[in-house]
Amino acid sequence: MILNDLNHLIELRNYLFNFISDNKRDLFETKIHHRTRHLTLVLEDIYQGHNASAVLRSAEIFGIQDVHIIENFNNYNVSNQVAMGSKQWVNINKYRKHENNTLTCISQLKDQGYRIVATSPHAKGYQLSELPIEPKTALLFGTELKGLSKQAMDLADDFVTIPMYGFTESFNISVSAALCMYDFTQRLRASSIHWQLSDYEKVVTQIEWAKATIKKVKLIIQQFENQYHEGLQKVL
Amino acid sequence: MILNDLNHLIELRNYLFNFISDNKRDLFETKIHHRTRHLTLVLEDIYQGHNASAVLRSAEIFGIQDVHIIENFNNYNVSNQVAMGSKQWVNINKYRKHENNTLTCISQLKDQGYRIVATSPHAKGYQLSELPIEPKTALLFGTELKGLSKQAMDLADDFVTIPMYGFTESFNISVSAALCMYDFTQRLRASSIHWQLSDYEKVVTQIEWAKATIKKVKLIIQQFENQYHEGLQKVL
Repeated sequence: MILNDLNHLIELRNYLFNFISDNKRDLFETKIHHRTRHLTLVLEDIYQGHNASAVLRSAEIFGIQDVHIIENFNNYNVSNQVAMGSKQWVNINKYRKHENNTLTCISQLKDQGYRIVATSPHAKGYQLSELPIEPKTALLFGTELKGLSKQAMDLADDFVTIPMYGFTESFNISVSAALCMYDFTQRLRASSIHWQLSDYEKVVTQIEWAKATIKKVKLIIQQFENQYHEGLQKVL
Repeated sequence: MILNDLNHLIELRNYLFNFISDNKRDLFETKIHHRTRHLTLVLEDIYQGHNASAVLRSAEIFGIQDVHIIENFNNYNVSNQVAMGSKQWVNINKYRKHENNTLTCISQLKDQGYRIVATSPHAKGYQLSELPIEPKTALLFGTELKGLSKQAMDLADDFVTIPMYGFTESFNISVSAALCMYDFTQRLRASSIHWQLSDYEKVVTQIEWAKATIKKVKLIIQQFENQYHEGLQKVL
């Protein structure tokens, strides 16, 4: 089943929306306009489940649609108590089967036009509030103890640090990610940059949301497809 | 031993500084200028140790000198793995023996001139970035599941919310606290408000830091006091 025609997708979305509550449909209609791929997150080998889950939860709240998870050493499992159901609204892309997961993930993002920005309390770089928001940006976060791998640091286009005034060397990873997302998206939403999803992406995302909500959704999509193709044949 | 004379305190601090490394003394000399009591935090019945500890760690990094912990139902224990040693640099005030801990804590803060600001995703109030920073401010955070108690909400002077764009109802408590501290202190440091500790508070805090660092410090303070009073008697 290849769904690449926007009208086809819109009809599928409208069809699926018949199977969800009015309240949820209203949410799907409004929340979609706040989603963005202008900023995305990459988590490299986060090993504490509650940290990664807290990052996911914040990303969802800030309207960040994609989170990339590199698993060289650690398998990442979402703790639902911490993530609070956020994983059904965000696209999680895992990198774990490749010879070099870090390289694969970052190369793919660069191909998609992302500037790669590594967060590190040590590397000199932009202060968070001064990081330019114009380029599409992927923010990289490393493990709790050692930070990002040398390779990730080498592949980064820019660096960013959060101002720190105390004795403690670094923020908790979920705090660090949230502060970066907050500062970046707040400036983004106040700007004239076109940071929203495209019409095509909006419909695809709403379909994904509907799929995460509706029981026996495969059967329902099959029903729709049969009707749609019958309809097409009548028109042709 | 009553130490209320500034010169006496300065001499004690200088004496104690002989017993710590140059590196640490340099840190004590510089970090003190970033500490503030203009903003303080109140945590009401946080029950997940790693959350409270992550809040403490962030507070320390943002230079917030006092954290108030109300324990009506939950005993709060700092997880050192999460707090990363931050508790030795911050004053932790616990409220747990009173008939009404919430009332006791908030009343004391009001007596000290603090505006009480409750954080809640539900209550209508200031958007975080628009919360006025001029008044001395105590930010209240409630439990992970139920938020602040009705009493805390009733006693609040103002409310603040963090803008949220997703489906998930609330941020993790440690994230929420960090975002509030980041936004508030960043504006505070850029302002002309006198947010730093007083000279007296600076010396007292440095003495507390030294006490947290030096072994057998009571003996050393006793030594100093004996010498100091002998010195005084010679002068008189």
